[in-house]
Amino acid sequence: MAPVSPLAPAGFPALPAIAGVRFAAAEAGVRYKGRLDVMLASIDTGATLAGVFTRSATRSAPVLWCQDRIAAFAAGPAGDGGFAILVNSGNSNAFTGGAGRTAVRTTVGACAAGLGIPEDHVLVASTGVIGEPLPAERIVAVMETLRDGLDAGGAEDAARAIMTTDTFPKGATATADLAGVPVTITGFAKGSGMIAPDMATMLVFLFTDAVVGRDLLQAIVTRVNERTFNAITVDGDTSTSDSLYLAATGKAAMAPLVDAADPRVAAFEAALEGVMLDLAKQVVRDGEGATKFVEIRVTGAASHAAAKRIALSIANSPLVKTAIAGEDPNWGRVVMAVGKAGEEADRDRLSIRFGDILVADRGWVSPDYREADGAAYMKGQELVIGVDLAIGLGAATVWTCDLTHRYIEINADYRS
Amino acid sequence: MAPVSPLAPAGFPALPAIAGVRFAAAEAGVRYKGRLDVMLASIDTGATLAGVFTRSATRSAPVLWCQDRIAAFAAGPAGDGGFAILVNSGNSNAFTGGAGRTAVRTTVGACAAGLGIPEDHVLVASTGVIGEPLPAERIVAVMETLRDGLDAGGAEDAARAIMTTDTFPKGATATADLAGVPVTITGFAKGSGMIAPDMATMLVFLFTDAVVGRDLLQAIVTRVNERTFNAITVDGDTSTSDSLYLAATGKAAMAPLVDAADPRVAAFEAALEGVMLDLAKQVVRDGEGATKFVEIRVTGAASHAAAKRIALSIANSPLVKTAIAGEDPNWGRVVMAVGKAGEEADRDRLSIRFGDILVADRGWVSPDYREADGAAYMKGQELVIGVDLAIGLGAATVWTCDLTHRYIEINADYRS
Repeated sequence: MAPVSPLAPAGFPALPAIAGVRFAAAEAGVRYKGRLDVMLASIDTGATLAGVFTRSATRSAPVLWCQDRIAAFAAGPAGDGGFAILVNSGNSNAFTGGAGRTAVRTTVGACAAGLGIPEDHVLVASTGVIGEPLPAERIVAVMETLRDGLDAGGAEDAARAIMTTDTFPKGATATADLAGVPVTITGFAKGSGMIAPDMATMLVFLFTDAVVGRDLLQAIVTRVNERTFNAITVDGDTSTSDSLYLAATGKAAMAPLVDAADPRVAAFEAALEGVMLDLAKQVVRDGEGATKFVEIRVTGAASHAAAKRIALSIANSPLVKTAIAGEDPNWGRVVMAVGKAGEEADRDRLSIRFGDILVADRGWVSPDYREADGAAYMKGQELVIGVDLAIGLGAATVWTCDLTHRYIEINADYRS
Repeated sequence: MAPVSPLAPAGFPALPAIAGVRFAAAEAGVRYKGRLDVMLASIDTGATLAGVFTRSATRSAPVLWCQDRIAAFAAGPAGDGGFAILVNSGNSNAFTGGAGRTAVRTTVGACAAGLGIPEDHVLVASTGVIGEPLPAERIVAVMETLRDGLDAGGAEDAARAIMTTDTFPKGATATADLAGVPVTITGFAKGSGMIAPDMATMLVFLFTDAVVGRDLLQAIVTRVNERTFNAITVDGDTSTSDSLYLAATGKAAMAPLVDAADPRVAAFEAALEGVMLDLAKQVVRDGEGATKFVEIRVTGAASHAAAKRIALSIANSPLVKTAIAGEDPNWGRVVMAVGKAGEEADRDRLSIRFGDILVADRGWVSPDYREADGAAYMKGQELVIGVDLAIGLGAATVWTCDLTHRYIEINADYRS
């Protein structure tokens, strides 16, 4: 077993139950032995669901199935019947051709039959090795165990069951006050390698008892996703399987939230962003081999999009990431990464900060900067690198980790 | 001293003299002690020069100076007087503000005075640490030594003087038969980290005795650069200092080559491509920490540009590169990298080969593929990964190396 990341939170948070959702987990032996590797979330009838997926051109069979389902939910009438989310770790069922589609239909069929819900209401996700056939029968074999084990308090086991190279399970929760009605949002996620924007090897499951119309739910989750999961990167690689779901069970005693101009949207969105950002940062904290948690803040860019590209260029640079691993205040590499981003920059306006330390001031090393200060700062475990371009109003923040020997150990020997 | 790369060629090639060019090298102690760290190339009057530069938005002071010079050569009359190329290692004179520009003027002035040529005919390049002031006076102090040491046979020492983290000097040569007249092309290069397309931390100096008009020379070198130096990557990072120069001394007894339709262009371009590709591959072979040399061949893409983007997505993927380091035939990561490239791909048409081994055949693992064959193939030092998308006629080949512990050792501790 890999040691738990030094950046891990103290423990898994207590996740309050969400009315209308129950969880179960089981050992199916898909690939791993002697650990939970399948989880089921059962959602009562009347819920609305939204989803965000990887943009990979080689998306997995489960992703393709679920994209169609989410699109159909949005287009068609609500329909009766509960929903289910069935997830396995150990095998991503990606690049498995016709057999991959068959495996999806097999597990979906068994789940629908087991819970007595429509097949079109079953979402599936798989994470793990690419290109090996998914032994669907092992998942089918534990369906009864899963159904019988469904429990509103089962989120932590569910979060454990979806882990692959993760060193800790990731959960978060928040409440929002919607004009006097408290609603709860909880969620859990997995992910530690192949993490980049566009939803790289991450699975994220979010639940709320709020009553939210489907179109508004999708709009909110898409927007918040850009500022959270699409603003983190571990290695710049993008998975074939990333999926994020938000199910609103509608059990709270509130008037439905359907209008984007409803003043309650802001409170709901803020609470959701809290949960999603918390989970997104936990994914970075479990970045393969990570020993430093790094926030990159870019300001003064020509646009927000330019700021984000520059921030990601810094966050994904192997030279910046190895310098951080080596506790080297090598700000020259930050300059390099700004330069290669392909966005407008003026060398002679560029300023760089490590935390509160002004390192480079409008194009050259600050006269007050002492290398010893930078070196001392880099010994911290939580770092902030600030870059101001001083040419516009665009700003963006992204989160990443360092690149260490452990990343190479994990990834040079993953399948062996 | 770092050990020589296991991928290094047997030795530095014997570079024939090019009429009209002489080289010298000296120990200036810019940063390194006890080794050659400055080189001078002196080019007789009547030459034509072409150049290609980094596209970084944070280009170094020497690059900005030289871009202006090359543009002026192209726009204006030839002018009398020889040319010089003056290069130091150990300090890149990048992100050094006004002091950087002053340092350029100081070294250019001393070189022009020492050789009795116009200042505008002096090109300079610097490679090494970013953001520290260049001690120009140390370079000025060896100018007389350099001038007195100029020798047509001095290319190997010059190639050694420009090394930074390079573990071996890189040279190449070829001859071309231009309608019965033999011409020679020689060159040398440095580069081992911060290597990506758009000319990342590379310096390349090429010389030929051919008589070639400036515009045609620039067109040819730009074109060949796309297929050679802009088709290699070590870490996806892009330097602030990359520069490539080709000087044609015009000493060969031939009618000038000025017309793109001249049938001799093909022979000259082929020989130049041979030299440039040889040097570019040597840069990859000296990639920081490299233990495997990898060719990525993409065919069947929607366009050549799409093929190159997909090839670079594979070549730059940390997960692909660490799998290669671990000799793991993890073709699923190749699928992932194709998917994330942002180009058109159809999962169910995609085929992947490791050398001659068909691994994945139109969307799934080939029925004939045996993991043991893939694993045995990956033990080789020279690998070819072929990807066929089967949707169009676009093709591209790029070259890269693996990502190893040694890369992290080198880069986590570069400045300490």
